[in-house]
Amino acid sequence: MRTDIKINDYERVDDLHRDGYQIIQDPSRFCFGVDAVLLSSFARVKKGECVLDLGTGTGIIPILLAAKTKGQQFTGLEIQEESVEMALRSVALNELEEQVSILHGDIKEVATLFHKQTFDVVTSNPPYMNEGGGLVNPHSAKAIARHEILCSLEDIVAAADKVLNKGGRFYMIHRPHRLTDILVLMRQYKLEPKRLRFIHPFQDKAPTMVLVEGIKGGNPMVKVEPPLIIYSEAGKYTQEAFDIYYGEGQA
Amino acid sequence: MRTDIKINDYERVDDLHRDGYQIIQDPSRFCFGVDAVLLSSFARVKKGECVLDLGTGTGIIPILLAAKTKGQQFTGLEIQEESVEMALRSVALNELEEQVSILHGDIKEVATLFHKQTFDVVTSNPPYMNEGGGLVNPHSAKAIARHEILCSLEDIVAAADKVLNKGGRFYMIHRPHRLTDILVLMRQYKLEPKRLRFIHPFQDKAPTMVLVEGIKGGNPMVKVEPPLIIYSEAGKYTQEAFDIYYGEGQA
Repeated sequence: MRTDIKINDYERVDDLHRDGYQIIQDPSRFCFGVDAVLLSSFARVKKGECVLDLGTGTGIIPILLAAKTKGQQFTGLEIQEESVEMALRSVALNELEEQVSILHGDIKEVATLFHKQTFDVVTSNPPYMNEGGGLVNPHSAKAIARHEILCSLEDIVAAADKVLNKGGRFYMIHRPHRLTDILVLMRQYKLEPKRLRFIHPFQDKAPTMVLVEGIKGGNPMVKVEPPLIIYSEAGKYTQEAFDIYYGEGQA
Repeated sequence: MRTDIKINDYERVDDLHRDGYQIIQDPSRFCFGVDAVLLSSFARVKKGECVLDLGTGTGIIPILLAAKTKGQQFTGLEIQEESVEMALRSVALNELEEQVSILHGDIKEVATLFHKQTFDVVTSNPPYMNEGGGLVNPHSAKAIARHEILCSLEDIVAAADKVLNKGGRFYMIHRPHRLTDILVLMRQYKLEPKRLRFIHPFQDKAPTMVLVEGIKGGNPMVKVEPPLIIYSEAGKYTQEAFDIYYGEGQA
């Protein structure tokens, strides 16, 4: 861990519970949440593979994947300049410059930024909300990270399709109410859905998130996995959720 | 209950645990299973509504819906003549002739059998398997009920679209591995998926069935409901599954 990285006084440094890695965040902007942690556990990255994270924000997903997998190279693409700058400092803080690159750019222009079929894996934790029209401040960092203002769900899927190898894998976390949109778009762009997992706060509650894996050019058959339950009772993680957050251990 | 209905010696009469209703089945053909019971509980039928069941087999779903709901008229459409004949005897056995009609016909010709927009609700427990090509006997009653031999998933969705009122509801139970096909076809035919529920044998197991509700001309937003768990431990139903099978009571 380097100690010479500048941390602004309005920022905070959070522990990632993986290899001692940390991340720089600004609480007034968008801070990573459980969704980034869940996505980085759900995504399968094999030894030597190259990964692109679309809309990487503070770089949380590439940094977590560098900690959790044996992938070779992790690239994060982000449109908000301030987020890029923070992500670059987090990469330096963790001495991950050789493994993790952060690029400033627009998901909609992915074809001009990368060659076709450059990546084995694409991940994305995109803006969830598709009703950005009536926002008080559509230019705020939080609004851009949460609402489909600068990119739509279709932009994400189209970008993943452009840069993935044949047989490459696409991973996304999203909200269950968009499930039809997600599956229809993935099939349309030939990123065939192969694996789905719903995240439920409690066993008897509706899911609040869904994880999806697509395979470029895959066959049309999807496996819905056992539900991932977060809490066994109020305030107490299930063993599986605990292990995802903190590595193997006691819930 | 009438006692003058002929029961052949190779047939059996099973109790439906609803209003004393019974059904005539032939164990060498297709017998109804848990899926029909689950579908009849998931489907919402309001007072006075008219319901069509596509591929009704022995008439199990119209008979269960007649017992469970205040719908006005229930029609079952079935292509296999022997099943139609058995279903008609079950209707008579339960003295449901005024409420339940069974029609002999092909789902693919639904437009010639009914006027457009005749029904408020369409239900279907269609053949699950889409690999009928290599079957030893594709003419057997069981194979026709289980495999997409005489009708495909698209035939079912297209038929539902033809006969449903605007705002009408479509209910189907199917296998989770077909989820993408189901949602893509429903959107294509403008039966927008609105409600999904996955059925898991145990809390920590992958779902084995999925229930889906579509609304003709509905808005694109789907609600994924809490998981329906069948067993709390080996051999013991959860309270919810018990209530679905046997009505309110002790699991």
